[in-house]
Amino acid sequence: MKHGHIPRVTIGRLSMYIQELESMAREGIEVVSSEPLAKACDVNASQVRKDLSYFGEFGVRGVGYNIAKLLESISLALGIHRQWNVALVGIGNLGRALLNHPEFKQRNFHVVAAFDCDPFKIGEIVQGTEIICTKRLNEKVRELGIEIGILTTPPERTQRATQHLIDAGVRAILNYTPARLRVPEGVHVEYVDFFHSLYTLSLNLSLGERHL
Amino acid sequence: MKHGHIPRVTIGRLSMYIQELESMAREGIEVVSSEPLAKACDVNASQVRKDLSYFGEFGVRGVGYNIAKLLESISLALGIHRQWNVALVGIGNLGRALLNHPEFKQRNFHVVAAFDCDPFKIGEIVQGTEIICTKRLNEKVRELGIEIGILTTPPERTQRATQHLIDAGVRAILNYTPARLRVPEGVHVEYVDFFHSLYTLSLNLSLGERHL
Repeated sequence: MKHGHIPRVTIGRLSMYIQELESMAREGIEVVSSEPLAKACDVNASQVRKDLSYFGEFGVRGVGYNIAKLLESISLALGIHRQWNVALVGIGNLGRALLNHPEFKQRNFHVVAAFDCDPFKIGEIVQGTEIICTKRLNEKVRELGIEIGILTTPPERTQRATQHLIDAGVRAILNYTPARLRVPEGVHVEYVDFFHSLYTLSLNLSLGERHL
Repeated sequence: MKHGHIPRVTIGRLSMYIQELESMAREGIEVVSSEPLAKACDVNASQVRKDLSYFGEFGVRGVGYNIAKLLESISLALGIHRQWNVALVGIGNLGRALLNHPEFKQRNFHVVAAFDCDPFKIGEIVQGTEIICTKRLNEKVRELGIEIGILTTPPERTQRATQHLIDAGVRAILNYTPARLRVPEGVHVEYVDFFHSLYTLSLNLSLGERHL
């Protein structure tokens, strides 16, 4: 397996491939060639072959990929063969939506703690997880072995929540708020951008209108 | 202005640039060079210059970009200088989080209708928007001039909701569910993928461990 640098655009397509491969596996399919996988994912077959080449040499020309082996190899490369303990900080509607999302656990991301500083929320149980005061973040991160923090706080509180997570030893943060974060080297941050996709749609609709 | 094809990766960085440029404008800054903009967005300056070249020739060597003109040009290119009417289909926690998100309206995406087929939700007002029975989608899309549909339904209902939107004349769909959609040519679909960012984090954490 080629280790190391997997391009971001490839990572961006992996969850789609994983989903299709799992769905094929559930139907009892053992081997798939790049064409039907590409068709199901709405990309071209050479792109699929290139993307999957980062995960080993499973493609047998004229036969296809062994689905079980390919899924195992992708899981290993992404580090999702093992469980990640996740803390959610900021329990508004979006935080609740993420707590209720069954796929997180299915995909080995276990939200084991939920934090909020609103006294009216502290103590409430959401999907089996108790909302805890953000002041106890440090203690809980160590106790529960939390490695990833998800931020769904109001934007003005995001930097402080980030600092709490970093002080507690968390090295990976997923930020759902529009705030840009300042973090020291060695801390990984990913931003979930709600507008990127809407801009792509408005751009495409506008281009369509211009060509009328 | 170069019209036509703006690469997806560039569109992906635009909301970040827009946010930084707006924040600079609010502080009274009129002109910015690529370096401080790049620093604020955590990308390199040549990338910023390349991305912004799609929106006109505003960069004056040694001086920088006129922020107001650049923002106007980006808005025009993306079609976000005018209002888009949006329908939200499926009002669970995620749907509520989106209805409560003030930035949608600020960015000219107005959620003007919310649909759900749960009789216990129909008639409820969320953030000034009444939840309407999904059966009335066709009528409401025409009445309210809805051009974009956002799907936050359970995955098994997504395709049916998509069909309702298409039948009503909607040509742009933002899908927050993991289901892949079948749509006719001319209908634009964007997928919001919750796992792409988590996979990037677990990959980076795993690479860090392998290098210890």
